[in-house]
Amino acid sequence: MTQAVEMEGGMFVMDRDGNSYASLFMVEKVLYSARSEYQKIMVFETKDLGRVLMLDDIFNVSPVMEAFYHEPMAHIPMAMADGSKEVLIIGGGDFGVAYHVVKHDSLQRLTLCELDAEILKVSRRFFPQWAACEQDPRVTVAVGDGFAHLSQCRPESLDVIIVDSTDPYLHDSILISDEFFNRAALALKPGGVMMQIVADFIFYRDVWLKVIPRVKRYFSDVAPMAVPIPFYATGAWGLMLAGKETDGLDPERVSADYLSEIQDLRTLTPELVAGWFSLPPFIRKSFATVL
Amino acid sequence: MTQAVEMEGGMFVMDRDGNSYASLFMVEKVLYSARSEYQKIMVFETKDLGRVLMLDDIFNVSPVMEAFYHEPMAHIPMAMADGSKEVLIIGGGDFGVAYHVVKHDSLQRLTLCELDAEILKVSRRFFPQWAACEQDPRVTVAVGDGFAHLSQCRPESLDVIIVDSTDPYLHDSILISDEFFNRAALALKPGGVMMQIVADFIFYRDVWLKVIPRVKRYFSDVAPMAVPIPFYATGAWGLMLAGKETDGLDPERVSADYLSEIQDLRTLTPELVAGWFSLPPFIRKSFATVL
Repeated sequence: MTQAVEMEGGMFVMDRDGNSYASLFMVEKVLYSARSEYQKIMVFETKDLGRVLMLDDIFNVSPVMEAFYHEPMAHIPMAMADGSKEVLIIGGGDFGVAYHVVKHDSLQRLTLCELDAEILKVSRRFFPQWAACEQDPRVTVAVGDGFAHLSQCRPESLDVIIVDSTDPYLHDSILISDEFFNRAALALKPGGVMMQIVADFIFYRDVWLKVIPRVKRYFSDVAPMAVPIPFYATGAWGLMLAGKETDGLDPERVSADYLSEIQDLRTLTPELVAGWFSLPPFIRKSFATVL
Repeated sequence: MTQAVEMEGGMFVMDRDGNSYASLFMVEKVLYSARSEYQKIMVFETKDLGRVLMLDDIFNVSPVMEAFYHEPMAHIPMAMADGSKEVLIIGGGDFGVAYHVVKHDSLQRLTLCELDAEILKVSRRFFPQWAACEQDPRVTVAVGDGFAHLSQCRPESLDVIIVDSTDPYLHDSILISDEFFNRAALALKPGGVMMQIVADFIFYRDVWLKVIPRVKRYFSDVAPMAVPIPFYATGAWGLMLAGKETDGLDPERVSADYLSEIQDLRTLTPELVAGWFSLPPFIRKSFATVL
């Protein structure tokens, strides 16, 4: 649900998901606004946040905050998997996560599978700093359904799967279904991991209480992480790491040595990552029956 | 700058500080709205955030998120000071920080010095769960100017000072001035610490670059901490811990043992606190010249 709102100081666009809270973003100049086959896509300039991408009126990304979201999504699973040669990104059509994944020399092949061809075009045009990574010979971009793509992957062929979709909890997406987790686990090598954005921990703990047991049917380990993402409402966002035949998921793999190899790292420290794995006590408590 | 905004779904109140970003809170019912001698005070019910306190149209606190703000403000300095017997809170008229400080058996005396008598009355009426702590015989509530109060404190009489004010960076408050830091350091015992909310790290790094050298003139140690506070715009909020003749400020003092003694702890873990001390690399880099 969204509206453009005209107020003192300019034109705002609103990101709101039905709670008592909404975020407004002041538009300096609309660069692109159209409805694709799958979603409403909007790109606009702002004074302080840089160029903002909104999908279905939900704030997606801007250069000011992208690293807070993309660095955990990319660098944590690349550290936690036993190998990091074969990577699949489902969604992620802004190329943001891919941009960070290709920084790893260990990467041999990255497939980005995005449903909406239009978002890829928009990103190439308005976010070339991220989209440029598709020039990397290790990168393949596929347009299509992520679930279908995963079903065609050879069993035990992937080291890392990263699911970067918009708010899967809002429409009970197939990306958090039993079928999806089953196929993801089949496609992963033993020791492989899946990283996924799930839902905010303050308002959507019920989603987590459904998703965690589902994931545990197919994965040996699951670690919800409370990661603050600027401008994602509440700032108490939840990413989920799931491991296939991993021996626990030890945040110490995201070590100072590991991070020191990553060019232009902006937001991650070993201590912060360990903190996100630890979870605030009230969240850990409410997950006690499922974790 | 704020406005009430009427939109589909109800009446919203906006928190906005001049950037390209604003937060809207949907009002179910206004419980109190008046201008005191010092500020505009508003209390309203919401559907999902509980009862919200806004001061000068800035979102201050609600029961849903209070622990994310008050627990670090209270429990980190209580751990980091060599003693935690004598505590002064400047501001904090919602009694939120005080509510958490009195959980410590080590506390002998807590003085809460709030400028605005009206906010104390409003809190007693609408947030009795926190205000009840003033019944604790160790607690004294003083109405008056925090700077003046501090000037009258005996030298080396305090273990902990906590400064809980609304957005001091917005109006270059005396609470982040040389004079204030000087008096705070004089009033602290050796081994004492001051905790203070300063500013967001994304938009207000210039404020930090001024404040850190100022604090260092009077304190031996200073630690900025990036603490995510839900509903505080950007979620990359900055608290500052300053130590007088402390031997560095070691986050390991906020140990599992220490935290296990605190009743109904909701948000803190030793790992999270260590993470906040570590600071994201891009922030640490931009503080390199001053830290």
